[in-house]
Amino acid sequence: MDRRSFLRASTVGAGAAAASGLAAPAYAQGARTLTMVTSVPHGFAVFDDAAVYFNEVVSAMTDGQITIDKKAAGELVGGFEVFDAVSSGQADMYHSADYYFGNQHPGYYYYTAVPFGATAEELSTWMYHGGGQELYDGLGQIFGLKSFHAGSTGMQPGGWFRKEINSADDLKGLKFRMPGIGGKALGLTGASVQAIPGGEIYQALSSGAIDGAEWIGPFADERLGFQEVCDYYYTSGFHEPGSALSVAFNLDIWESLTPAQQAIMEQAAKAATTHSLTQGIANNAAALRRIQSQGIKLMEFDDSVWDAFGTASLTAMDEFMGDEMYAEIRTSFEESMKASSDWLQRADRSYVQQRDRVLNRG
Amino acid sequence: MDRRSFLRASTVGAGAAAASGLAAPAYAQGARTLTMVTSVPHGFAVFDDAAVYFNEVVSAMTDGQITIDKKAAGELVGGFEVFDAVSSGQADMYHSADYYFGNQHPGYYYYTAVPFGATAEELSTWMYHGGGQELYDGLGQIFGLKSFHAGSTGMQPGGWFRKEINSADDLKGLKFRMPGIGGKALGLTGASVQAIPGGEIYQALSSGAIDGAEWIGPFADERLGFQEVCDYYYTSGFHEPGSALSVAFNLDIWESLTPAQQAIMEQAAKAATTHSLTQGIANNAAALRRIQSQGIKLMEFDDSVWDAFGTASLTAMDEFMGDEMYAEIRTSFEESMKASSDWLQRADRSYVQQRDRVLNRG
Repeated sequence: MDRRSFLRASTVGAGAAAASGLAAPAYAQGARTLTMVTSVPHGFAVFDDAAVYFNEVVSAMTDGQITIDKKAAGELVGGFEVFDAVSSGQADMYHSADYYFGNQHPGYYYYTAVPFGATAEELSTWMYHGGGQELYDGLGQIFGLKSFHAGSTGMQPGGWFRKEINSADDLKGLKFRMPGIGGKALGLTGASVQAIPGGEIYQALSSGAIDGAEWIGPFADERLGFQEVCDYYYTSGFHEPGSALSVAFNLDIWESLTPAQQAIMEQAAKAATTHSLTQGIANNAAALRRIQSQGIKLMEFDDSVWDAFGTASLTAMDEFMGDEMYAEIRTSFEESMKASSDWLQRADRSYVQQRDRVLNRG
Repeated sequence: MDRRSFLRASTVGAGAAAASGLAAPAYAQGARTLTMVTSVPHGFAVFDDAAVYFNEVVSAMTDGQITIDKKAAGELVGGFEVFDAVSSGQADMYHSADYYFGNQHPGYYYYTAVPFGATAEELSTWMYHGGGQELYDGLGQIFGLKSFHAGSTGMQPGGWFRKEINSADDLKGLKFRMPGIGGKALGLTGASVQAIPGGEIYQALSSGAIDGAEWIGPFADERLGFQEVCDYYYTSGFHEPGSALSVAFNLDIWESLTPAQQAIMEQAAKAATTHSLTQGIANNAAALRRIQSQGIKLMEFDDSVWDAFGTASLTAMDEFMGDEMYAEIRTSFEESMKASSDWLQRADRSYVQQRDRVLNRG
């Protein structure tokens, strides 16, 4: 993928801007409804929770002057068509995970999660104080979008397995469900990566058609019943270490909002990210205990498996380095992550290790 | 301290409520200025940054209908008098760290930081999804306050030392500056705890009057020049593992705000917490590198020191268990922290350990 294809794609957004620009001032008075398209059904764990929270606080903060009409995947456009729909002006905004749109520009992978990438806290540090938002705005200029993080799943575990993984050799031929760039990396380790929609994972695990699968995290996974058909749960994974969700506005719609409404959207998105991340920690913590009490073995991959994941992940992420903007985003992301991690390791993580050792010593 | 003293204190707030209640509806129309008292000078690192951010986004989101007039410590009341000033109605709101008001009710310690307590992420999980905010509201009812977290310093390191600490024995007689409940715990280890204002720490270290001191973190500490007079910096500490800052409204003022204004205040506070925490991570990460490049030795306490800190901290926090509300807050906090930490250890921390090992292997 080269830069010209992005520039061609951008003419869709630019055309929409020219056509609708004059109408914008008419929006400024009175109550207004914005149409939000999403990639999941209403009520979908974590994803929809974050969208609902964002929409509710926007309505509350604007005193009802802005109502967001949320459309489930398929109601107006398909779940993966939301990017094009908002870029073209067919819908006003979307709530989704931007790595679904890595085929539009691979820089978007960094705005959800990349293999061996940032935790949620490190990602937010990059976004708000490390140049991440400014580069996000740069991507948005190409496609006629204004985007913010508005939700987080937190760490996504390694997933559910019907058998133990004792070394990197056990990955060879393993039939495992994992989508996206993580799945691509997993394929490079010799695993046989399967593309299976969420609703069909349980049956595939149950029948033995696949050896394992990852989904989101203990809370969401438990609802799909994987603990009934797998004995092993690997609680840490390489592929999505802190996945952000995003809200993106059509740029003309964004520019038609008053400065106060723009400020409300930006702060609502920031608050939704914190709300969602901490909700996930609380829910996953409780679900992990339930899963464990049902006899599921909580596991960790050994160093050889992590080494294999690491090599494969770097290869997968290197593929796009010919694109200048991708390289700029990746460099910025990795520099910020490295600095944050050095500090957090010496401060928070050393502390927690000692705290948990001392408090559990009795 | 017993419960009756809190109830006596609460009559101040209740009286103010009765006196000013009728005037409230007059506020509802038009632009309004609220007076915010704080505990630090204007421009004070971390603390004031969070207050400025909160005030700016409130002004932006309300389209200037609410302006917050921030008073530095000493301008209207002293830095530690802000609680009484807002409780009594002398000022509309404060921005501070609530552990300064542990003498009003020891439950407030949990709303900034306690020794061997929660990291910033764990604290927010308790606040937003573990019952923390509801118990905060319960404390607020006693004193006529409505409070939210609105900022975070993140982890506060163990501090600056003129000599190495090689075991718990080295704490005996150590002259160390540490305020609050952490200082109390440190005193129980045999250290000679010194109460020294921030502006006088450099001189005390320089002259050898004290052997060491903690302040906030690398970024704030660097401005005070401690790296010029100490050789050792212990990057992880037991006393403030993730200190939240708070905004508190006089309850009558809070109730005089419209529902939309209340929503804006609540979301601005949540966003300010994230803004401030991640700003601290970015700033501390950069400062840590500068400090290290100047030849300061970055250190960790050994297990015997952590064990001594742990025993002393639990003793210090047990002192208030005769108070029912304190016990309820502590139990809620510790249950949430334990569950969050179990999950984060198996997910995020295991991941980061492997990521940093794999990425640094080359």
